[in-house]
Amino acid sequence: MNTWGEKIKISIFGESHGAAVGIVLDGIPSGVELDLEEIKREMQRRAPGRNSISTPRAEADEVKILSGFFDGKTTGTPLAGMILNTNTISKHYQKELVRPGHADYTGFMRYGMSHDYRGGGHFSGRLTAPLVFAGAVAKQVVAAYGVTVGAHILRIGEFWDTAFDAVQVDAEQLRTLWQKEFPVLDWQTGDKMQREIVRQRDQLNSIGGIVECAVVGMPPGLGAPFFGSVESRISSMMFSVPAVKGIEFGAGFGFAEMTGKEANDEFYMKDGCVKTYTNHNAGINGGITNGMPVVFKAVVKPTASIAQKQRTVDIEKMKDAEIEVHGRHDPCITHRAAVVIEAATALVMLDLLLDNGAEGIR
Amino acid sequence: MNTWGEKIKISIFGESHGAAVGIVLDGIPSGVELDLEEIKREMQRRAPGRNSISTPRAEADEVKILSGFFDGKTTGTPLAGMILNTNTISKHYQKELVRPGHADYTGFMRYGMSHDYRGGGHFSGRLTAPLVFAGAVAKQVVAAYGVTVGAHILRIGEFWDTAFDAVQVDAEQLRTLWQKEFPVLDWQTGDKMQREIVRQRDQLNSIGGIVECAVVGMPPGLGAPFFGSVESRISSMMFSVPAVKGIEFGAGFGFAEMTGKEANDEFYMKDGCVKTYTNHNAGINGGITNGMPVVFKAVVKPTASIAQKQRTVDIEKMKDAEIEVHGRHDPCITHRAAVVIEAATALVMLDLLLDNGAEGIR
Amino acid sequence: MNTWGEKIKISIFGESHGAAVGIVLDGIPSGVELDLEEIKREMQRRAPGRNSISTPRAEADEVKILSGFFDGKTTGTPLAGMILNTNTISKHYQKELVRPGHADYTGFMRYGMSHDYRGGGHFSGRLTAPLVFAGAVAKQVVAAYGVTVGAHILRIGEFWDTAFDAVQVDAEQLRTLWQKEFPVLDWQTGDKMQREIVRQRDQLNSIGGIVECAVVGMPPGLGAPFFGSVESRISSMMFSVPAVKGIEFGAGFGFAEMTGKEANDEFYMKDGCVKTYTNHNAGINGGITNGMPVVFKAVVKPTASIAQKQRTVDIEKMKDAEIEVHGRHDPCITHRAAVVIEAATALVMLDLLLDNGAEGIR
Amino acid sequence: MNTWGEKIKISIFGESHGAAVGIVLDGIPSGVELDLEEIKREMQRRAPGRNSISTPRAEADEVKILSGFFDGKTTGTPLAGMILNTNTISKHYQKELVRPGHADYTGFMRYGMSHDYRGGGHFSGRLTAPLVFAGAVAKQVVAAYGVTVGAHILRIGEFWDTAFDAVQVDAEQLRTLWQKEFPVLDWQTGDKMQREIVRQRDQLNSIGGIVECAVVGMPPGLGAPFFGSVESRISSMMFSVPAVKGIEFGAGFGFAEMTGKEANDEFYMKDGCVKTYTNHNAGINGGITNGMPVVFKAVVKPTASIAQKQRTVDIEKMKDAEIEVHGRHDPCITHRAAVVIEAATALVMLDLLLDNGAEGIR
Repeated sequence: MNTWGEKIKISIFGESHGAAVGIVLDGIPSGVELDLEEIKREMQRRAPGRNSISTPRAEADEVKILSGFFDGKTTGTPLAGMILNTNTISKHYQKELVRPGHADYTGFMRYGMSHDYRGGGHFSGRLTAPLVFAGAVAKQVVAAYGVTVGAHILRIGEFWDTAFDAVQVDAEQLRTLWQKEFPVLDWQTGDKMQREIVRQRDQLNSIGGIVECAVVGMPPGLGAPFFGSVESRISSMMFSVPAVKGIEFGAGFGFAEMTGKEANDEFYMKDGCVKTYTNHNAGINGGITNGMPVVFKAVVKPTASIAQKQRTVDIEKMKDAEIEVHGRHDPCITHRAAVVIEAATALVMLDLLLDNGAEGIR
Repeated sequence: MNTWGEKIKISIFGESHGAAVGIVLDGIPSGVELDLEEIKREMQRRAPGRNSISTPRAEADEVKILSGFFDGKTTGTPLAGMILNTNTISKHYQKELVRPGHADYTGFMRYGMSHDYRGGGHFSGRLTAPLVFAGAVAKQVVAAYGVTVGAHILRIGEFWDTAFDAVQVDAEQLRTLWQKEFPVLDWQTGDKMQREIVRQRDQLNSIGGIVECAVVGMPPGLGAPFFGSVESRISSMMFSVPAVKGIEFGAGFGFAEMTGKEANDEFYMKDGCVKTYTNHNAGINGGITNGMPVVFKAVVKPTASIAQKQRTVDIEKMKDAEIEVHGRHDPCITHRAAVVIEAATALVMLDLLLDNGAEGIR
Repeated sequence: MNTWGEKIKISIFGESHGAAVGIVLDGIPSGVELDLEEIKREMQRRAPGRNSISTPRAEADEVKILSGFFDGKTTGTPLAGMILNTNTISKHYQKELVRPGHADYTGFMRYGMSHDYRGGGHFSGRLTAPLVFAGAVAKQVVAAYGVTVGAHILRIGEFWDTAFDAVQVDAEQLRTLWQKEFPVLDWQTGDKMQREIVRQRDQLNSIGGIVECAVVGMPPGLGAPFFGSVESRISSMMFSVPAVKGIEFGAGFGFAEMTGKEANDEFYMKDGCVKTYTNHNAGINGGITNGMPVVFKAVVKPTASIAQKQRTVDIEKMKDAEIEVHGRHDPCITHRAAVVIEAATALVMLDLLLDNGAEGIR
Repeated sequence: MNTWGEKIKISIFGESHGAAVGIVLDGIPSGVELDLEEIKREMQRRAPGRNSISTPRAEADEVKILSGFFDGKTTGTPLAGMILNTNTISKHYQKELVRPGHADYTGFMRYGMSHDYRGGGHFSGRLTAPLVFAGAVAKQVVAAYGVTVGAHILRIGEFWDTAFDAVQVDAEQLRTLWQKEFPVLDWQTGDKMQREIVRQRDQLNSIGGIVECAVVGMPPGLGAPFFGSVESRISSMMFSVPAVKGIEFGAGFGFAEMTGKEANDEFYMKDGCVKTYTNHNAGINGGITNGMPVVFKAVVKPTASIAQKQRTVDIEKMKDAEIEVHGRHDPCITHRAAVVIEAATALVMLDLLLDNGAEGIR
């Protein structure tokens, strides 16, 4: 299903080579002034064709707001945004040869032969453009509640950026990342990562990476035990982002070698607020925020589209075949995924805030 | 929220020290014969008090089926199961001292001072008992569709079990795990793990671990892109299991250092079916099953309850304090979590099967 | 599906002749003191076997609260209530002969031959007992927000009670109805109605009726346009009550002969509040409350169980047959339905209040 | 909330005087050929400005399909349709004077002063245009399952059309109604109704009516007891249609004066199928279809916009005021509502069919 959310409902639509991609965002509070220039900048951060490490398919990615916005403010009714597809070249796509690592085969198994296979159709990374639009709106709304979301590239191949300090990370550090074309904390590592991406591109190959995302300013008490846990909500959203294949909160898989003494975040009082000395649990206990930063990592697999010859099957003839995937592709999508993950996280935070009555207290 | 699912709806209730814990399972197909003895065995696998590496709180964990079951078969209407709490000792719990690593503080922030704090209340690991009951039912239903789910302890502290072979894992191997009190593939590693757990217990400490879970027999074409992806559904369920803090599918975080050439699972035909040579993508492309085994790992943090002195706050006086958590606790919950994860995975698989019309094709 | 609600989630379970019937109520705010005696009285109002105009099947209908209630208050976590079935006689029910007007045939078509047909199974009016329990809780919670719900029997056969004055109806009038065994505004009409019911019973027949329900104290601004309209929510709940086959809000079907001039409720100011002179629209404009009383009527069809010979089919032999429905039945269920409708309405009102952030403002 | 559905999810957006209105339809099966000309005709049936008894605001109501449609067939992914607003005149609308019978006041109470009040904004009857588009698609999809939906005007003011015969109504009769500009069974009554509408228009007034809708071809066994009942689903959708204030199934409010003997629809076998002699229960027992035609009536209140002087309040100054509603309005909307009700009913039928696995059996 293409809908998500408790208090906000998101409905996403479109195909890579269809008329348009878009999103309907229901449940946004009314009366929030939106900075359209800022939304445009967010769209540009994700947009393709901007540099040598992204796909040369250039798309303006201009969002046309169709509803829910009047006199510079949200109206409270559904906010619909649409992005026309302007630069599509469909000749590269052969229906019968399913591309390894892509959803071509599963798309046909799910939807039958009427599935729009061109450029990945509805499975295309292009569908993250409306998600970034929705997230850009959400970032502005949660800002009104004092919440800031930011993400950086933690790893590309062998190169690791400095990780967030889960206790000290603050809004200013996160906002700095918004300005960067290639968001890392340590620019020297960033240079090495970019050289690695170029190297992979030159070898007709691609490379994966890890994005780290942090949220500061979330009040304690949001979320729920079990199915409505903060981790459940964030992860259900993150695994909606194409290419994400793993997520860990706080110490994550490192918990496997920690003892309870190390892993428990002990409490103390500071300025009348309850804080924890460490933040291995990522600001979440029992599925509910405790007021410390929410920090998680998501792994992004290498771009599936590579120009090398690969073994596949011809699903019409039902026999083995070979394929070389042409077209215009990213040798790495981790840096673009970071923008999407940041945006998608803002949507989850907004849903959590509204679900716990934040609208009333604004 | 305590409800989950598209075609099956699960509603879980209860507190650790209340009258009962239970679950309502709506959407189970009618006419499925249930083996009640098998369900009892599943309950026993999770039940506390069975050995030296689990909590000595002994509970029969006998499920009373209240509805949805008639003449040995499911009726198709909601199946409700209830487990009475019989062995509760509430004297250990002090309302005002919130236990580090637990949901005491967040519970009070979410629900206010009327929250039932005794033994973790609704946040207690005890709530996984009804989940195992529901999963035991689901395991029998999905078996009718040819689907098998199994899990083992991949890691405790420094000790690693052999991992599943993501291509070769089969139903027989998974069913073998169901019979083991301490589910590992390599019993010698299992012995070391158990000694490590005892060692931590003796030091009034606890230890974390990783559970690996596999599903075989899922037909291709189940799931959806975006919010209904197989990964989104599994993860939203897994993060409902207390103490799970990370999940990765297939190569998971390893994708960060892989190239596209390595990561893509190339296709081939075998006996008229589409297969992949490797299975780094865990049987899932674009959120939809491709017919290969679904394999994932979930990390389980060390038990938060430890008898050592810890720093905390007194939330009534709003000042720093110290706490020693007494009561009867597990020095490691990974082996019990493995049973819960297996059960919970069966519920997700059932929902996926039914959501794609499996009921009609049975 | 047996779940309902946006902010509160209700999950209902049970069969007439199974072990128990019950309900899980998720989303109830924490810290609400519940008057258990009052809940008991509400259960008694619906309970069978109390007088000559109801079924002689006597059930204590004692609710056992399993969770979500601690130290006299709600905890905020799921509130589960269970009622054991104690007085069941299953011998009257013949699986193969489907009773006209009942769900026997459709139950078998929906669930197959494993459906629990005894006493209507899951379709039984007995399932309204947990609904009344949930509604009794909801009535106490909405009372804390100043909201009162009440219902009376508007019509039985040819006899009409006085209708509510949609502008003047107040909390006191509604609370008076709670005390009445046979809730009508005009007791003389009530007597005639009861004589009519006895007359039908003596003729081995049954009779239908209309229930009118009113809600006062709802603040303006609750609800939503389209699918979340107050009318959509109330009606989706009311048609969950067995035997309800129609609903009209305010002037209802009378609107067909009204002009716009007559139908529009003109506004005026009174004591700083916006009021309407008339209330043909039942306190709802565009799906959203306007602060005036919410008033609606629901029609309840005559009890389907009658002891006269009726034509039916034998669904095993697939041929025409005859049936006389024995057992212990109500000659009219309108008066018991009034209690259910009142309770169910309180649940909808609570969901509306919470969906619009009422929890925060209490 | 502006989303609806179990298996299909509908998300509606737009305002009367904004850029566009539209809808996202998720869950439509793939591979269904759509007759776009037929969809165009359906849009024309609802479109304004076609004759003297409708508003002179002429809108082409051309739907631009943005996604989910490829090579003449549905793809199975979300189908988005958008209709640009081309003929808007906003000068007539005064923000501070709330129009009686409209949602202006409740819109401001719900969404605050940022609500788009122009032409009713999101509450406008114009939002039914995307609903008719979605319904036109649904009509074609359910036709593939042998299901036909049709509606006629049963009543305008004092004039009654012939009612459907709930047992005999068939697909041919329903399809005939699709061709009529003013859908009635008896054209002479239709003439009188139209003269009555003109008479009300000339008096600067408006008039209400009743629409009767029937569905034939629904297989038995669809729907569910309680919250998923066929009646709950239809009614939750119908009360989303602006101006609908009541609904009754089959004998409806007439059940109040019927006995069980009269009301029960006795069964018999015909050509190997179970049928009922009468159809007072509208083809629904216990919330589930029994295979007989589904028949219901919905009342449509008179257009709220009338050019006569009415009493209202100025919500900025919070004092009594007067208003004359100018602009271009329908003196009766029942005939346009009939098209919307027919379309919306097709959406519910499609959801019911898919929810019960119909996709698999096609």
